Amino acid sequence: MKTIFGHIAIVGLGLIGGSLARVVKQRKLAHTVSAFGRNIERLQKARELGLVDNCYKRFEDGLHEADAVVIATPVGIIEEQVRALAPYLRGGAVVTDVGSVKGPLVAALEPRMPRGTFFIGGHPIAGTENSGFESSFAELFEGRICVLTPTRQSDAGALERVRKLWIAAGSSVVLMDAEVHDRIVAAISHLPHMVAFTLVNAIAGMKNFKQNILEYSAGGFRDFTRIAASDPVMWRDIALMNRDNLLQTLDFFTRALEDLKDAVYSGDGDKLEELFKQSRDTRRGI
Amino acid sequence: MKTIFGHIAIVGLGLIGGSLARVVKQRKLAHTVSAFGRNIERLQKARELGLVDNCYKRFEDGLHEADAVVIATPVGIIEEQVRALAPYLRGGAVVTDVGSVKGPLVAALEPRMPRGTFFIGGHPIAGTENSGFESSFAELFEGRICVLTPTRQSDAGALERVRKLWIAAGSSVVLMDAEVHDRIVAAISHLPHMVAFTLVNAIAGMKNFKQNILEYSAGGFRDFTRIAASDPVMWRDIALMNRDNLLQTLDFFTRALEDLKDAVYSGDGDKLEELFKQSRDTRRGI
Repeated sequence: MKTIFGHIAIVGLGLIGGSLARVVKQRKLAHTVSAFGRNIERLQKARELGLVDNCYKRFEDGLHEADAVVIATPVGIIEEQVRALAPYLRGGAVVTDVGSVKGPLVAALEPRMPRGTFFIGGHPIAGTENSGFESSFAELFEGRICVLTPTRQSDAGALERVRKLWIAAGSSVVLMDAEVHDRIVAAISHLPHMVAFTLVNAIAGMKNFKQNILEYSAGGFRDFTRIAASDPVMWRDIALMNRDNLLQTLDFFTRALEDLKDAVYSGDGDKLEELFKQSRDTRRGI
Repeated sequence: MKTIFGHIAIVGLGLIGGSLARVVKQRKLAHTVSAFGRNIERLQKARELGLVDNCYKRFEDGLHEADAVVIATPVGIIEEQVRALAPYLRGGAVVTDVGSVKGPLVAALEPRMPRGTFFIGGHPIAGTENSGFESSFAELFEGRICVLTPTRQSDAGALERVRKLWIAAGSSVVLMDAEVHDRIVAAISHLPHMVAFTLVNAIAGMKNFKQNILEYSAGGFRDFTRIAASDPVMWRDIALMNRDNLLQTLDFFTRALEDLKDAVYSGDGDKLEELFKQSRDTRRGI
């Protein structure tokens, strides 16, 4: 593969940051990789594994070397991280991120970047219910979609380099308005997670059984619990940052649930069968 | 393995009936296996594969040979099937079933069996989102729980033979009151399926996007759609037969959802993090 950046800095070596470091090294997408984070032992571990060349706790120590910076921290602190590192950016540097919510970040950051530096919002739609560097792997982005959310003010060259990075990591890149992105992920990702969390809590909260009813769980419920094991802090931040879109999808879901409850209540077999067939047809269409 | 029945009849060769025929033949749990069903070609296919010895469309043709009858039809027609076959049972025969709802069946059937024949309600908690004979396999019951729901009037010998059959098929057998069973599966299985169906329908019904948003689905939503591909007719019948318990769990879930929505609406990060942690802890405890 062709080298895309001379020196890439990755802020936060969790599942996404760690996987990005691995694929960048494996495919030689940058000459040099620096990692920034609070947990210096984890960073040193990554250096020992040959996944990064340098590791730093403080932006002032090495960030000026980088011509690309990928913020892979929890979404709730991306804005403050970019603000903190901005003064140390070299001219021409492009900053991008991997946060699951884009609208507030793009609006807050893009217009306020130091002259001659650029912010391009990004969201690789990849991940597992496991978080952390220990779960990272170079193939995480393979065959997945990465959404980039440039605005009319975005620098075309900066956008193109970020796009090439994700394509080289194995993803298809889709350009999208940040607000549209946030509405789509509210529907397709944030709502399902909220429903899974709620379902697991509701069932675990049913105390009127002598048995441990979780022992009787078969396929269906186990799939839900897998999703519901996702990182609580990340999901708290997503719910707060994408609040309005999420509330809309929750209302939409609630209305669909009321329809189903009405059909169960009135014993309307035709309606139930129709609802379940719809659902199966949607699955088959994916 | 020791032979448990001389001649076992399986009514309905779908996922469960087909898998039972396979394991019975493979482990020689009966000398002879007869299959009954409407689709005589499918039954003949099973006979050609050596999974059953005889196949019949009509109970009058071969049922009197069987000392055990397992009803593996969709749950909605189990009661009528048992009523239809009862006149042809031989003395001492034990009838059991595999339906996901037990209370109404046990109450309707057990007291009305012909003198000297027995009904023991059963529910092997095993299954995949795939249905049909084509998806059947001998290991389906391995390591799973099979619930039997005897009453005080149940014949101890009949119960013991059915118990041995499921143990020999690889399952752990749990004896339980039919009403308790129905409340547990409402929580742990029927509610999650209703939620998955509803979620998939709600998301598919969000028409205010130019994009086909289903293309952006990552792990979480795909797990839901897998569940939501389950057989619509089976789930219609389950919802109708376990209506009262299901409505209770749906109400319980709705209240939990309202709590979550309140926390999102008011931007209560501490509450959200607490809810998501609870959910993760439940998963870890399973």
